[in-house]
Amino acid sequence: MTLISPTRQLLADAALRDRAIAVVPGGVYGHMSVLKQMPPSYPQFYSRGAGARVWDVDGNEYIDFMCAFGPMILGYANPTVDAAAREQQLLGDALSGPTGHFVELAELLVDTVAHAEWAMFAKNGTDATSIAVMTARAGTGKTKLLKARKSYHGANAWFTPNPLGTTAADRADIIEFEYNDVASVEAAVAAAGGDVAAIIVPPFRHDGLTDQEFATQEFASGVRAIATRIGAALILDEVRTGFRIDAAGAWEQYGVRPDLTAFSKGIANGYALAAVVGIDAFREAAGSIYVTGSFWMSGVAMAAAVATIGLLTDGGIAQMTAAGTQFREGLAAQSAAHGFTLHQTGPVTMPFIRFDNDETLTQVFAFTDAAIRRGVLLHPWHNMFLSGAHTPEDVSAALERTDEAFAETRELFPL
Amino acid sequence: MTLISPTRQLLADAALRDRAIAVVPGGVYGHMSVLKQMPPSYPQFYSRGAGARVWDVDGNEYIDFMCAFGPMILGYANPTVDAAAREQQLLGDALSGPTGHFVELAELLVDTVAHAEWAMFAKNGTDATSIAVMTARAGTGKTKLLKARKSYHGANAWFTPNPLGTTAADRADIIEFEYNDVASVEAAVAAAGGDVAAIIVPPFRHDGLTDQEFATQEFASGVRAIATRIGAALILDEVRTGFRIDAAGAWEQYGVRPDLTAFSKGIANGYALAAVVGIDAFREAAGSIYVTGSFWMSGVAMAAAVATIGLLTDGGIAQMTAAGTQFREGLAAQSAAHGFTLHQTGPVTMPFIRFDNDETLTQVFAFTDAAIRRGVLLHPWHNMFLSGAHTPEDVSAALERTDEAFAETRELFPL
Repeated sequence: MTLISPTRQLLADAALRDRAIAVVPGGVYGHMSVLKQMPPSYPQFYSRGAGARVWDVDGNEYIDFMCAFGPMILGYANPTVDAAAREQQLLGDALSGPTGHFVELAELLVDTVAHAEWAMFAKNGTDATSIAVMTARAGTGKTKLLKARKSYHGANAWFTPNPLGTTAADRADIIEFEYNDVASVEAAVAAAGGDVAAIIVPPFRHDGLTDQEFATQEFASGVRAIATRIGAALILDEVRTGFRIDAAGAWEQYGVRPDLTAFSKGIANGYALAAVVGIDAFREAAGSIYVTGSFWMSGVAMAAAVATIGLLTDGGIAQMTAAGTQFREGLAAQSAAHGFTLHQTGPVTMPFIRFDNDETLTQVFAFTDAAIRRGVLLHPWHNMFLSGAHTPEDVSAALERTDEAFAETRELFPL
Repeated sequence: MTLISPTRQLLADAALRDRAIAVVPGGVYGHMSVLKQMPPSYPQFYSRGAGARVWDVDGNEYIDFMCAFGPMILGYANPTVDAAAREQQLLGDALSGPTGHFVELAELLVDTVAHAEWAMFAKNGTDATSIAVMTARAGTGKTKLLKARKSYHGANAWFTPNPLGTTAADRADIIEFEYNDVASVEAAVAAAGGDVAAIIVPPFRHDGLTDQEFATQEFASGVRAIATRIGAALILDEVRTGFRIDAAGAWEQYGVRPDLTAFSKGIANGYALAAVVGIDAFREAAGSIYVTGSFWMSGVAMAAAVATIGLLTDGGIAQMTAAGTQFREGLAAQSAAHGFTLHQTGPVTMPFIRFDNDETLTQVFAFTDAAIRRGVLLHPWHNMFLSGAHTPEDVSAALERTDEAFAETRELFPL
C-alpha cells in the first residue's frame, strides 16, 4: 500500500492559487472551485490523469472518484477513445462544416437510446437542456416549464441555482414542483393554466448536500402520463446520469420513455460534447429553432463519442457498476466497523455519502480530508462518479485507505 | 493552376446528406447548414484541413476563406498550436480541476488585452456574451440590456435571431438601438428609465446579408460616454472579431476601452474555448455569479490558446492582414475588369462581398457557385475569414480562379 504522507505539501498548488486570484475572479469559479467549499487538503490544480488516477500539480497521486465531475466515464486517457479522437484531430477538428462523424454519432444515438429518433449536438450540458426546452416550446406553442425544486439543469439565466446576474423575467415562465410528488406536479400544471411546454426532470434526485433519491415508479409513470395528457414534452435531463445507468435511457427500468433527452458530461469521455435526442413528434420543432455554436460541428469530440459509446455498451457500464458496488459494500462494512452510520444513496456508479447526524458536514469533511491526504479523491457533499477504468484493484486500494480515514475520523469524533 | 472540374461530383456528400436527414432535424442545423441557404455546389461535409485548404468528403480541395466561420485563425492543423494541445492531451484534458494552463492563459489575456484585469473561460461564444451580461447585471444591480438591432450576440434564448422556442419573457429586458446612431442609444437609455445594466456592441456592424460597417469614432466614444454616465457596463462582443483586428482590443484604434469583452472562435485556433475579460470594477460581480460547465476547466484548449495568442501577436495578425489586403485588392481589380461593381466591406481579415444592384443575391450566388466549383470556398451573404496561414501564393491561386468565376458570372449576366 502506497501511503501519501499526511504532511504532503501543495506548494505548486498554492502558488497557482495565488496567481489565479490575481487574474481570475475568485481564483477558480464554478463546480471545480475548492475555495470556501471543500476541506483544506483538497487540491485545486491538476497535472494529469490515467485510468482511475489523477495527479495534482505537486505530483501527488489520487485514486479518483470524481472523474472530472462526470466526463471521464471510461477513465482518463482511454487509449481507444483517444486514438479515435487523435485520428480526426490530425485531419482537423473545426472545419467549415461537419465531418462524417456527425452522421455516424447521430445514427449511433438513435440506435442506442430507446426513444431517440433524431439527435443534435452542442458543447455544454446547459446547451442540451436549453435546446430541449426551446424545442418543447417551439413544438407545443406553449410557454411554461415545470421543473423540480432544487433540481439542477444548467447554469444559464433560466436555470442557474444562484439568481445573481439574472432577472425576474429570466425565470418568469418556470413553475416548480417537488420531486417524487405527483400531486405537486398536478398543482404546477393547474398553476400554469394549461400553458405547459415541458416538464423537465433528472432521472433521480441528485441535488447537492442531500441524500440522492431514486424516482418512484409512480412518479416516473405519473409525469409521463401528465405530459401526454396535457400535450407537453417530457424532458429527461441525463446530462449527469447519461450512460452511467442504462445506455438505452435511465428510465427504461420503469418502462417510461421521455420525449426529449439531454446528454453531455460522459458522452465523449472528456471531449467537450453535448447531445439532445428526441422523438419524431418533436423533429420539426427541433429543426425550426435557431441554435448553433462555433464548435458544435467539430469532428474530434464526435469521433471520441462514437468510440466511447461503443466501449460503454460493450462492457464499460458493467465494469463501472461492478466497481461501484464493490466500493459501496466496502464503505458500508468499514463505516459500520468504525461505528458510523453512513448513508450511501443513488446508483453505485454515482455515489453520494453522508454521515448520520452530521448536518454541519463536520464529520464528512473530516473523513474526506483524511481520505484525500491518503490519496483518495472523494467529495463531501456532491455525488461522486465511477468510471469503466476503475478496476477491482483500484477500488481495493482505495478501500484500504478509506479504512484508515474512518479510523482517523473516529479519533476526532470518539464514540 | 489546378482547376477543379465544373462537373466535380459530391457523391459522398450527397450520401451523408441523405443519412443525416434521417437522424438529425433538417440534416444539419445552424450556421453551417447549406441546405436552402447556399449555392447548390456548396459542400456540406468535410474530411480534413491543412493551412488555408480544406477538403470535402469527396476529396475536392478548396482554398478556404471561411476558416470554419472564424475559429481557424492560424489555419488548419497549425503545428505549433497542435503540438501544445497534444502535449496536454496526453496528460489529460478534462481533469477533476483546472491545470496550470488556466492561470497561464488568464495572465496572457490580462497582459494582451488592454482593458483586461481578469479573465474567465467557457466553451461557446454565447457563454461568453451571457457571462458578460450576467456580470453586468450583478455588478450594477440593474436589469435592462441595450443592444443594436440585428446585431448577433449568440444563440441562447436571450439573443437568438429566430424567436421560435423562446418566450416573451426571455427578451423582456432587452431594448434595441441602431448601430452607429448615438441618438438612438440615448433614446434606448431613456426608454429604460435609468435601469440599464449594460450596452453590448460588436466592434463593427457585421450582420448577415448587408454591407459591413465600421463603428464611427462618434459612436464608439458615444456609447463609452453614455455607459460611464449612467453606470452601465460597456460590453464589446469580440466573439467574431477577436484577434483579427487588434489583439489589444478592436476599439483601441478609437481610444475606447470597454468594461467587459467576450471572445471565442479564433482564440484557440479551433479548439473549443470562450473567454470573458473585464476591468477590476466588475471583478467581484464576475466572481459572484454562478456560471460553470462540464468542460470549462479542461486544459487542452487553454494550452492551444496560449500558443495561438503567442503566434497571433508574433506576426500572425500581420500576415492575415496582408493576405486579406491582397485578396481585397485582387477582387476589386477583377470585378472592375469584368464590369461589376463589387462592394467589399469590413476589415480585410473579415471580408464581406456584395454585387451592386443584386438585392435577390442572384449574381453573388452565381459568382460564389462558380468559385466553389473552381476550388475557392467563399460565402455569398456572410462575412468570410482570413487566417495567418493564408500565404501570398494561396491568395494568388485563389485570385486566378475568382477571375474565371467573374468571367463565368458575366456570361450569365451580360452587360
